Amino acid sequence: MVFDTFGTVVDWRSGVARDAAAFIARHRLAISPEEFASAWRKLYHPSMEPIRAGRRAYTSMDVLHRENLVALLADIAPGRTFPADELDDLNRAWHRLDPWPDAIAGLTRLKSRYIIGPLSNGSIALLVNMAKRAGLPWDVILGADVSRAYKRHPQAYLATVEVLAIQAGELMLVAAHNDDLAAARRCGLATGFVARPAEHGPGQTTNLAPEQEWDTLATDFVDLAGKLGC
Amino acid sequence: MVFDTFGTVVDWRSGVARDAAAFIARHRLAISPEEFASAWRKLYHPSMEPIRAGRRAYTSMDVLHRENLVALLADIAPGRTFPADELDDLNRAWHRLDPWPDAIAGLTRLKSRYIIGPLSNGSIALLVNMAKRAGLPWDVILGADVSRAYKRHPQAYLATVEVLAIQAGELMLVAAHNDDLAAARRCGLATGFVARPAEHGPGQTTNLAPEQEWDTLATDFVDLAGKLGC
Repeated sequence: MVFDTFGTVVDWRSGVARDAAAFIARHRLAISPEEFASAWRKLYHPSMEPIRAGRRAYTSMDVLHRENLVALLADIAPGRTFPADELDDLNRAWHRLDPWPDAIAGLTRLKSRYIIGPLSNGSIALLVNMAKRAGLPWDVILGADVSRAYKRHPQAYLATVEVLAIQAGELMLVAAHNDDLAAARRCGLATGFVARPAEHGPGQTTNLAPEQEWDTLATDFVDLAGKLGC
Repeated sequence: MVFDTFGTVVDWRSGVARDAAAFIARHRLAISPEEFASAWRKLYHPSMEPIRAGRRAYTSMDVLHRENLVALLADIAPGRTFPADELDDLNRAWHRLDPWPDAIAGLTRLKSRYIIGPLSNGSIALLVNMAKRAGLPWDVILGADVSRAYKRHPQAYLATVEVLAIQAGELMLVAAHNDDLAAARRCGLATGFVARPAEHGPGQTTNLAPEQEWDTLATDFVDLAGKLGC
Protein backbone atom coordinates (compact mmCIF):
# COMPACT_ATOMS: atom_id res chain seq x y z
CA MET A 1 0.00 0.00 0.00
CA VAL A 2 1.35 3.40 -0.97
CA PHE A 3 0.08 6.73 0.21
CA ASP A 4 -0.07 10.16 -1.25
CA THR A 5 1.55 12.27 1.44
CA PHE A 6 0.94 16.04 1.19
CA GLY A 7 -2.69 16.45 2.18
CA THR A 8 -3.45 12.74 2.58
CA VAL A 9 -1.03 11.78 5.39
CA VAL A 10 0.12 15.19 6.61
CA ASP A 11 -1.51 18.62 6.98
CA TRP A 12 0.82 20.74 4.86
CA ARG A 13 -1.18 23.97 5.22
CA SER A 14 -1.03 24.18 9.04
CA GLY A 15 2.58 23.01 9.12
CA VAL A 16 3.88 25.46 6.55
CA ALA A 17 1.84 28.30 8.09
CA ARG A 18 3.32 27.54 11.52
CA ASP A 19 6.90 27.72 10.23
CA ALA A 20 6.18 30.70 7.96
CA ALA A 21 4.67 32.79 10.78
CA ALA A 22 8.01 33.76 12.34
CA PHE A 23 9.54 34.54 8.94
CA ILE A 24 6.56 36.71 7.99
CA ALA A 25 6.67 38.60 11.29
CA ARG A 26 10.45 39.07 11.15
CA HIS A 27 10.28 40.54 7.68
CA ARG A 28 6.91 42.34 8.20
CA LEU A 29 5.33 40.79 5.14
CA ALA A 30 1.76 41.74 4.29
CA ILE A 31 0.29 38.23 4.20
CA SER A 32 -1.18 35.82 6.74
CA PRO A 33 0.71 32.56 7.43
CA GLU A 34 -2.19 30.55 6.03
CA GLU A 35 -2.35 32.61 2.84
CA PHE A 36 1.43 32.24 2.55
CA ALA A 37 1.13 28.44 2.79
CA SER A 38 -1.66 28.31 0.22
CA ALA A 39 0.12 30.66 -2.18
CA TRP A 40 3.34 28.61 -1.93
CA ARG A 41 1.42 25.40 -2.56
CA LYS A 42 -0.34 26.95 -5.54
CA LEU A 43 3.01 26.99 -7.36
CA TYR A 44 3.52 23.28 -6.68
CA HIS A 45 1.74 21.70 -9.64
CA PRO A 46 2.85 24.31 -12.22
CA SER A 47 6.48 23.82 -11.15
CA MET A 48 6.30 20.09 -11.96
CA GLU A 49 4.63 20.62 -15.33
CA PRO A 50 7.82 21.13 -17.39
CA ILE A 51 9.25 17.93 -15.85
CA ARG A 52 6.09 15.92 -16.47
CA ALA A 53 6.08 17.19 -20.06
CA GLY A 54 9.74 16.26 -20.58
CA ARG A 55 10.90 19.85 -21.13
CA ARG A 56 13.02 19.85 -17.94
CA ALA A 57 15.19 17.08 -16.48
CA TYR A 58 14.03 15.51 -13.23
CA THR A 59 14.63 17.93 -10.37
CA SER A 60 13.83 17.07 -6.76
CA MET A 61 10.91 18.65 -4.93
CA ASP A 62 13.25 20.38 -2.48
CA VAL A 63 14.74 22.35 -5.38
CA LEU A 64 11.28 23.10 -6.81
CA HIS A 65 9.96 24.21 -3.38
CA ARG A 66 12.99 26.51 -3.04
CA GLU A 67 12.46 28.02 -6.50
CA ASN A 68 8.76 28.47 -5.76
CA LEU A 69 9.57 30.18 -2.47
CA VAL A 70 11.78 32.70 -4.23
CA ALA A 71 9.04 33.32 -6.82
CA LEU A 72 6.43 33.74 -4.10
CA LEU A 73 8.54 36.25 -2.17
CA ALA A 74 9.24 38.20 -5.38
CA ASP A 75 5.49 38.48 -5.74
CA ILE A 76 4.74 39.40 -2.11
CA ALA A 77 7.72 41.73 -1.58
CA PRO A 78 9.04 42.86 -4.98
CA GLY A 79 12.67 43.94 -5.03
CA ARG A 80 13.49 42.71 -1.55
CA THR A 81 16.09 40.03 -0.79
CA PHE A 82 16.21 37.55 2.08
CA PRO A 83 19.12 35.67 3.68
CA ALA A 84 19.73 32.35 1.92
CA ASP A 85 19.98 30.41 5.18
CA GLU A 86 16.57 31.69 6.27
CA LEU A 87 15.08 30.57 2.95
CA ASP A 88 16.80 27.18 3.26
CA ASP A 89 15.34 26.74 6.72
CA LEU A 90 11.86 27.87 5.71
CA ASN A 91 12.06 25.52 2.71
CA ARG A 92 12.48 22.64 5.14
CA ALA A 93 9.07 23.45 6.62
CA TRP A 94 7.87 20.82 4.14
CA HIS A 95 10.01 18.27 6.04
CA ARG A 96 8.34 19.23 9.34
CA LEU A 97 4.67 18.64 8.64
CA ASP A 98 2.41 16.98 11.19
CA PRO A 99 0.24 13.98 10.32
CA TRP A 100 -3.54 14.14 10.48
CA PRO A 101 -4.66 12.83 13.91
CA ASP A 102 -5.70 9.38 12.62
CA ALA A 103 -2.68 8.78 10.38
CA ILE A 104 -0.19 7.06 12.69
CA ALA A 105 -2.76 4.83 14.36
CA GLY A 106 -4.15 3.77 10.98
CA LEU A 107 -0.75 3.23 9.37
CA THR A 108 0.46 1.19 12.34
CA ARG A 109 -2.49 -1.17 11.95
CA LEU A 110 -2.08 -1.38 8.16
CA LYS A 111 1.65 -2.12 8.59
CA SER A 112 0.79 -5.29 10.50
CA ARG A 113 -0.56 -6.80 7.28
CA TYR A 114 0.80 -4.77 4.37
CA ILE A 115 4.04 -3.22 3.20
CA ILE A 116 3.40 0.52 3.52
CA GLY A 117 5.21 3.50 2.06
CA PRO A 118 4.66 6.99 0.75
CA LEU A 119 4.17 7.44 -3.00
CA SER A 120 4.76 11.15 -2.97
CA ASN A 121 6.21 13.84 -5.14
CA GLY A 122 8.41 14.70 -2.16
CA SER A 123 12.10 13.78 -2.20
CA ILE A 124 13.54 10.86 -0.23
CA ALA A 125 15.25 13.36 2.10
CA LEU A 126 12.00 15.18 2.71
CA LEU A 127 10.00 12.00 3.29
CA VAL A 128 12.49 10.37 5.64
CA ASN A 129 13.00 13.54 7.67
CA MET A 130 9.22 13.96 7.88
CA ALA A 131 8.72 10.34 8.92
CA LYS A 132 11.45 10.47 11.54
CA ARG A 133 10.10 13.67 13.12
CA ALA A 134 6.44 12.67 12.96
CA GLY A 135 6.81 8.95 13.71
CA LEU A 136 5.31 7.69 10.45
CA PRO A 137 6.00 3.93 10.47
CA TRP A 138 6.86 3.41 6.78
CA ASP A 139 8.41 0.15 5.62
CA VAL A 140 9.93 1.81 2.56
CA ILE A 141 10.21 5.33 1.18
CA LEU A 142 9.06 5.53 -2.42
CA GLY A 143 8.10 8.43 -4.65
CA ALA A 144 9.64 10.84 -7.09
CA ASP A 145 13.32 10.30 -6.25
CA VAL A 146 12.85 6.56 -6.88
CA SER A 147 10.65 6.77 -9.99
CA ARG A 148 12.35 9.95 -11.30
CA ALA A 149 8.87 11.10 -12.33
CA TYR A 150 6.10 13.21 -10.84
CA LYS A 151 2.53 12.10 -10.34
CA ARG A 152 0.24 12.21 -12.35
CA HIS A 153 2.71 11.02 -15.01
CA PRO A 154 2.18 7.24 -15.50
CA GLN A 155 5.88 6.58 -14.88
CA ALA A 156 5.43 7.67 -11.24
CA TYR A 157 3.07 4.73 -10.66
CA LEU A 158 4.55 2.19 -13.07
CA ALA A 159 8.15 2.59 -11.88
CA THR A 160 6.94 2.13 -8.30
CA VAL A 161 5.23 -1.14 -9.23
CA GLU A 162 8.41 -2.21 -10.99
CA VAL A 163 10.80 -1.54 -8.09
CA LEU A 164 8.49 -3.48 -5.78
CA ALA A 165 8.54 -6.38 -8.29
CA ILE A 166 4.79 -6.92 -8.07
CA GLN A 167 1.82 -6.61 -10.42
CA ALA A 168 0.07 -3.22 -10.65
CA GLY A 169 -3.15 -4.69 -9.24
CA GLU A 170 -1.30 -5.81 -6.10
CA LEU A 171 -0.52 -2.19 -5.21
CA MET A 172 -3.10 0.18 -3.73
CA LEU A 173 -2.66 3.94 -3.81
CA VAL A 174 -4.44 5.75 -0.98
CA ALA A 175 -5.07 9.42 -1.65
CA ALA A 176 -7.37 12.31 -0.81
CA HIS A 177 -7.17 13.52 -4.41
CA ASN A 178 -9.40 12.10 -7.12
CA ASP A 179 -7.04 12.98 -9.97
CA ASP A 180 -4.15 11.10 -8.32
CA LEU A 181 -6.35 8.02 -7.94
CA ALA A 182 -7.59 8.36 -11.53
CA ALA A 183 -4.00 8.38 -12.81
CA ALA A 184 -3.14 5.38 -10.62
CA ARG A 185 -6.19 3.47 -11.86
CA ARG A 186 -5.21 4.09 -15.48
CA CYS A 187 -1.94 2.30 -14.61
CA GLY A 188 -3.80 -0.66 -13.12
CA LEU A 189 -3.33 0.11 -9.41
CA ALA A 190 -6.02 -0.48 -6.80
CA THR A 191 -7.37 2.72 -5.27
CA GLY A 192 -8.41 3.90 -1.81
CA PHE A 193 -10.01 7.29 -1.12
CA VAL A 194 -9.92 9.11 2.20
CA ALA A 195 -11.43 12.62 2.18
CA ARG A 196 -9.39 15.36 3.85
CA PRO A 197 -11.91 18.21 3.89
CA ALA A 198 -9.61 20.52 5.90
CA GLU A 199 -6.58 20.21 3.61
CA HIS A 200 -7.14 23.62 2.06
CA GLY A 201 -8.59 25.22 5.18
CA PRO A 202 -12.14 26.43 5.69
CA GLY A 203 -14.28 26.65 2.57
CA GLN A 204 -12.56 23.81 0.69
CA THR A 205 -14.58 22.93 -2.41
CA THR A 206 -12.51 20.19 -4.08
CA ASN A 207 -12.03 16.49 -3.30
CA LEU A 208 -14.78 16.45 -0.68
CA ALA A 209 -16.17 13.21 -2.11
CA PRO A 210 -15.09 10.35 -4.37
CA GLU A 211 -15.59 11.11 -8.07
CA GLN A 212 -15.31 7.50 -9.23
CA GLU A 213 -16.12 4.16 -7.65
CA TRP A 214 -12.74 3.70 -5.97
CA ASP A 215 -11.97 0.22 -4.66
CA THR A 216 -12.05 1.28 -1.01
CA LEU A 217 -13.63 4.34 0.59
CA ALA A 218 -12.82 5.31 4.17
CA THR A 219 -13.44 8.27 6.44
CA ASP A 220 -9.87 8.20 7.80
CA PHE A 221 -6.87 5.86 8.12
CA VAL A 222 -8.25 4.00 11.13
CA ASP A 223 -11.47 3.33 9.21
CA LEU A 224 -9.32 2.26 6.23
CA ALA A 225 -7.41 -0.23 8.41
CA GLY A 226 -10.68 -1.72 9.61
CA LYS A 227 -12.07 -1.99 6.06
CA LEU A 228 -8.89 -3.79 4.94
CA GLY A 229 -9.05 -6.33 7.76
CA CYS A 230 -6.33 -4.87 9.98
CA MET B 1 23.57 5.45 9.35
CA VAL B 2 23.54 3.01 6.48
CA PHE B 3 24.36 -0.66 6.64
CA ASP B 4 25.80 -3.15 4.27
CA THR B 5 23.24 -5.94 4.33
CA PHE B 6 24.41 -9.31 2.94
CA GLY B 7 26.82 -10.59 5.56
CA THR B 8 26.67 -7.54 7.83
CA VAL B 9 22.98 -7.53 8.80
CA VAL B 10 21.83 -10.93 7.56
CA ASP B 11 23.41 -14.38 7.35
CA TRP B 12 23.08 -15.09 3.63
CA ARG B 13 24.93 -18.41 3.71
CA SER B 14 22.64 -20.18 6.18
CA GLY B 15 19.52 -18.64 4.65
CA VAL B 16 20.31 -19.59 1.06
CA ALA B 17 21.48 -23.06 2.14
CA ARG B 18 18.21 -23.62 4.00
CA ASP B 19 16.10 -22.73 0.96
CA ALA B 20 18.41 -24.57 -1.46
CA ALA B 21 18.30 -27.82 0.52
CA ALA B 22 14.86 -28.88 -0.71
CA PHE B 23 15.70 -27.95 -4.31
CA ILE B 24 18.96 -29.92 -4.15
CA ALA B 25 17.24 -32.97 -2.70
CA ARG B 26 14.35 -32.83 -5.19
CA HIS B 27 16.72 -32.71 -8.13
CA ARG B 28 19.36 -35.01 -6.58
CA LEU B 29 22.20 -32.56 -7.17
CA ALA B 30 25.70 -33.58 -6.08
CA ILE B 31 26.41 -30.59 -3.82
CA SER B 32 25.77 -29.69 -0.21
CA PRO B 33 23.38 -26.79 0.55
CA GLU B 34 26.24 -24.77 2.10
CA GLU B 35 28.49 -25.32 -0.91
CA PHE B 36 25.58 -24.35 -3.15
CA ALA B 37 25.14 -21.08 -1.24
CA SER B 38 28.84 -20.27 -1.36
CA ALA B 39 29.12 -21.11 -5.06
CA TRP B 40 26.10 -18.93 -5.90
CA ARG B 41 27.54 -16.07 -3.87
CA LYS B 42 30.89 -16.47 -5.60
CA LEU B 43 29.26 -15.29 -8.83
CA TYR B 44 27.91 -12.14 -7.09
CA HIS B 45 30.84 -9.73 -7.48
CA PRO B 46 31.80 -10.85 -11.02
CA SER B 47 28.20 -10.35 -12.17
CA MET B 48 28.26 -6.68 -11.08
CA GLU B 49 31.62 -6.00 -12.69
CA PRO B 50 30.32 -5.13 -16.20
CA ILE B 51 27.83 -2.71 -14.61
CA ARG B 52 30.45 -1.09 -12.38
CA ALA B 53 32.70 -0.73 -15.42
CA GLY B 54 29.92 0.83 -17.50
CA ARG B 55 29.81 -1.99 -20.05
CA ARG B 56 26.28 -3.03 -19.06
CA ALA B 57 23.29 -0.86 -18.12
CA TYR B 58 22.14 -0.96 -14.50
CA THR B 59 20.34 -4.25 -13.87
CA SER B 60 18.80 -5.10 -10.51
CA MET B 61 20.32 -7.69 -8.21
CA ASP B 62 17.25 -9.94 -8.56
CA VAL B 63 18.01 -10.28 -12.26
CA LEU B 64 21.73 -10.85 -11.58
CA HIS B 65 20.98 -13.44 -8.89
CA ARG B 66 18.68 -15.25 -11.36
CA GLU B 67 21.31 -15.23 -14.11
CA ASN B 68 23.92 -16.46 -11.63
CA LEU B 69 21.61 -19.27 -10.51
CA VAL B 70 21.22 -20.48 -14.09
CA ALA B 71 25.00 -20.31 -14.58
CA LEU B 72 25.60 -22.20 -11.33
CA LEU B 73 23.15 -24.98 -12.26
CA ALA B 74 24.71 -25.28 -15.72
CA ASP B 75 27.98 -25.91 -13.93
CA ILE B 76 26.63 -28.36 -11.34
CA ALA B 77 24.26 -30.23 -13.65
CA PRO B 78 25.32 -29.67 -17.28
CA GLY B 79 22.58 -30.11 -19.86
CA ARG B 80 19.72 -30.34 -17.36
CA THR B 81 16.82 -27.89 -17.21
CA PHE B 82 14.72 -26.84 -14.22
CA PRO B 83 11.17 -25.42 -14.00
CA ALA B 84 11.22 -21.61 -14.21
CA ASP B 85 8.86 -21.20 -11.26
CA GLU B 86 11.17 -23.29 -9.06
CA LEU B 87 14.11 -21.11 -10.07
CA ASP B 88 12.08 -17.94 -9.41
CA ASP B 89 11.20 -19.20 -5.95
CA LEU B 90 14.74 -20.28 -5.13
CA ASN B 91 15.98 -16.89 -6.36
CA ARG B 92 13.81 -15.26 -3.72
CA ALA B 93 15.81 -17.08 -1.03
CA TRP B 94 17.83 -13.85 -0.99
CA HIS B 95 14.66 -12.06 0.18
CA ARG B 96 14.21 -14.53 3.04
CA LEU B 97 17.49 -14.25 4.93
CA ASP B 98 17.61 -14.13 8.71
CA PRO B 99 19.42 -11.38 10.62
CA TRP B 100 22.39 -12.11 12.85
CA PRO B 101 21.13 -12.55 16.45
CA ASP B 102 22.20 -9.05 17.58
CA ALA B 103 20.99 -7.14 14.50
CA ILE B 104 17.41 -6.24 15.40
CA ALA B 105 18.19 -5.28 19.01
CA GLY B 106 21.10 -3.09 17.89
CA LEU B 107 19.23 -1.47 15.01
CA THR B 108 16.25 -0.72 17.23
CA ARG B 109 18.51 1.15 19.66
CA LEU B 110 20.34 2.99 16.85
CA LYS B 111 16.99 3.99 15.31
CA SER B 112 16.13 5.92 18.47
CA ARG B 113 18.84 8.44 17.62
CA TYR B 114 19.74 8.02 13.95
CA ILE B 115 18.02 7.57 10.62
CA ILE B 116 18.88 3.99 9.65
CA GLY B 117 18.69 2.19 6.33
CA PRO B 118 20.39 -0.48 4.26
CA LEU B 119 23.00 0.63 1.71
CA SER B 120 23.04 -2.63 -0.14
CA ASN B 121 23.51 -3.94 -3.63
CA GLY B 122 20.14 -5.64 -3.16
CA SER B 123 17.08 -4.28 -4.94
CA ILE B 124 14.36 -2.29 -3.17
CA ALA B 125 12.00 -5.25 -3.57
CA LEU B 126 14.53 -7.62 -2.03
CA LEU B 127 15.34 -5.29 0.87
CA VAL B 128 11.76 -4.45 1.75
CA ASN B 129 10.64 -8.08 1.56
CA MET B 130 13.61 -9.06 3.72
CA ALA B 131 12.88 -6.32 6.25
CA LYS B 132 9.19 -7.16 6.46
CA ARG B 133 9.82 -10.87 7.00
CA ALA B 134 12.71 -10.43 9.42
CA GLY B 135 11.45 -7.35 11.28
CA LEU B 136 14.36 -5.08 10.39
CA PRO B 137 13.26 -1.62 11.58
CA TRP B 138 14.62 0.52 8.70
CA ASP B 139 13.58 4.15 8.36
CA VAL B 140 14.35 4.15 4.65
CA ILE B 141 15.43 1.61 2.04
CA LEU B 142 18.47 2.79 0.10
CA GLY B 143 20.93 0.98 -2.11
CA ALA B 144 21.46 0.05 -5.72
CA ASP B 145 17.93 0.70 -7.03
CA VAL B 146 18.15 4.26 -5.65
CA SER B 147 21.74 5.06 -6.65
CA ARG B 148 21.59 2.99 -9.87
CA ALA B 149 25.14 1.89 -9.06
CA TYR B 150 26.81 -1.01 -7.31
CA LYS B 151 29.23 -0.72 -4.42
CA ARG B 152 32.28 -0.29 -4.56
CA HIS B 153 31.64 2.21 -7.35
CA PRO B 154 31.79 5.74 -5.81
CA GLN B 155 28.37 6.60 -7.23
CA ALA B 156 26.79 4.04 -4.88
CA TYR B 157 27.93 6.10 -1.87
CA LEU B 158 27.75 9.60 -3.36
CA ALA B 159 24.24 9.24 -4.78
CA THR B 160 23.09 7.99 -1.37
CA VAL B 161 24.53 11.07 0.32
CA GLU B 162 22.84 13.21 -2.31
CA VAL B 163 19.35 11.74 -1.92
CA LEU B 164 19.59 12.19 1.85
CA ALA B 165 20.58 15.85 1.26
CA ILE B 166 23.39 15.72 3.81
CA GLN B 167 27.18 16.01 3.74
CA ALA B 168 29.20 12.82 3.18
CA GLY B 169 30.75 13.09 6.65
CA GLU B 170 27.30 13.03 8.25
CA LEU B 171 26.68 9.52 6.89
CA MET B 172 28.25 6.41 8.44
CA LEU B 173 28.47 3.13 6.57
CA VAL B 174 28.52 0.08 8.83
CA ALA B 175 29.93 -3.02 7.18
CA ALA B 176 31.72 -6.27 7.90
CA HIS B 177 33.81 -5.84 4.75
CA ASN B 178 36.96 -3.74 4.74
CA ASP B 179 36.83 -3.00 1.01
CA ASP B 180 33.29 -1.61 1.27
CA LEU B 181 34.41 0.69 4.10
CA ALA B 182 37.51 1.72 2.17
CA ALA B 183 35.37 2.74 -0.83
CA ALA B 184 33.00 4.64 1.46
CA ARG B 185 35.89 6.44 3.16
CA ARG B 186 37.28 7.53 -0.21
CA CYS B 187 33.90 9.23 -0.76
CA GLY B 188 34.10 10.99 2.63
CA LEU B 189 31.70 8.82 4.63
CA ALA B 190 32.26 7.88 8.25
CA THR B 191 32.91 4.18 8.77
CA GLY B 192 31.93 1.53 11.30
CA PHE B 193 33.31 -2.02 11.31
CA VAL B 194 31.58 -5.04 12.82
CA ALA B 195 33.30 -8.39 12.21
CA ARG B 196 31.09 -11.25 11.06
CA PRO B 197 33.51 -14.19 11.35
CA ALA B 198 30.83 -16.77 10.46
CA GLU B 199 29.67 -15.11 7.24
CA HIS B 200 31.49 -17.62 5.05
CA GLY B 201 31.09 -20.55 7.41
CA PRO B 202 33.83 -22.36 9.31
CA GLY B 203 37.36 -21.54 8.27
CA GLN B 204 36.68 -17.96 7.13
CA THR B 205 39.97 -16.17 6.50
CA THR B 206 38.86 -12.72 5.27
CA ASN B 207 37.51 -9.66 7.11
CA LEU B 208 38.20 -11.12 10.54
CA ALA B 209 39.67 -7.79 11.70
CA PRO B 210 39.71 -4.13 10.69
CA GLU B 211 42.34 -3.34 8.05
CA GLN B 212 42.27 0.43 8.58
CA GLU B 213 41.52 2.65 11.57
CA TRP B 214 37.79 2.84 10.99
CA ASP B 215 35.91 5.51 12.92
CA THR B 216 34.02 3.02 15.09
CA LEU B 217 34.80 -0.61 15.84
CA ALA B 218 32.23 -2.85 17.47
CA THR B 219 31.85 -6.54 18.20
CA ASP B 220 28.19 -6.57 17.10
CA PHE B 221 25.25 -4.17 16.57
CA VAL B 222 24.37 -3.96 20.26
CA ASP B 223 27.95 -3.00 21.06
CA LEU B 224 27.81 -0.50 18.17
CA ALA B 225 24.66 1.10 19.62
CA GLY B 226 26.38 1.49 22.98
CA LYS B 227 29.49 3.00 21.41
CA LEU B 228 27.35 5.53 19.55
CA GLY B 229 25.46 6.59 22.67
CA CYS B 230 22.19 4.74 22.04
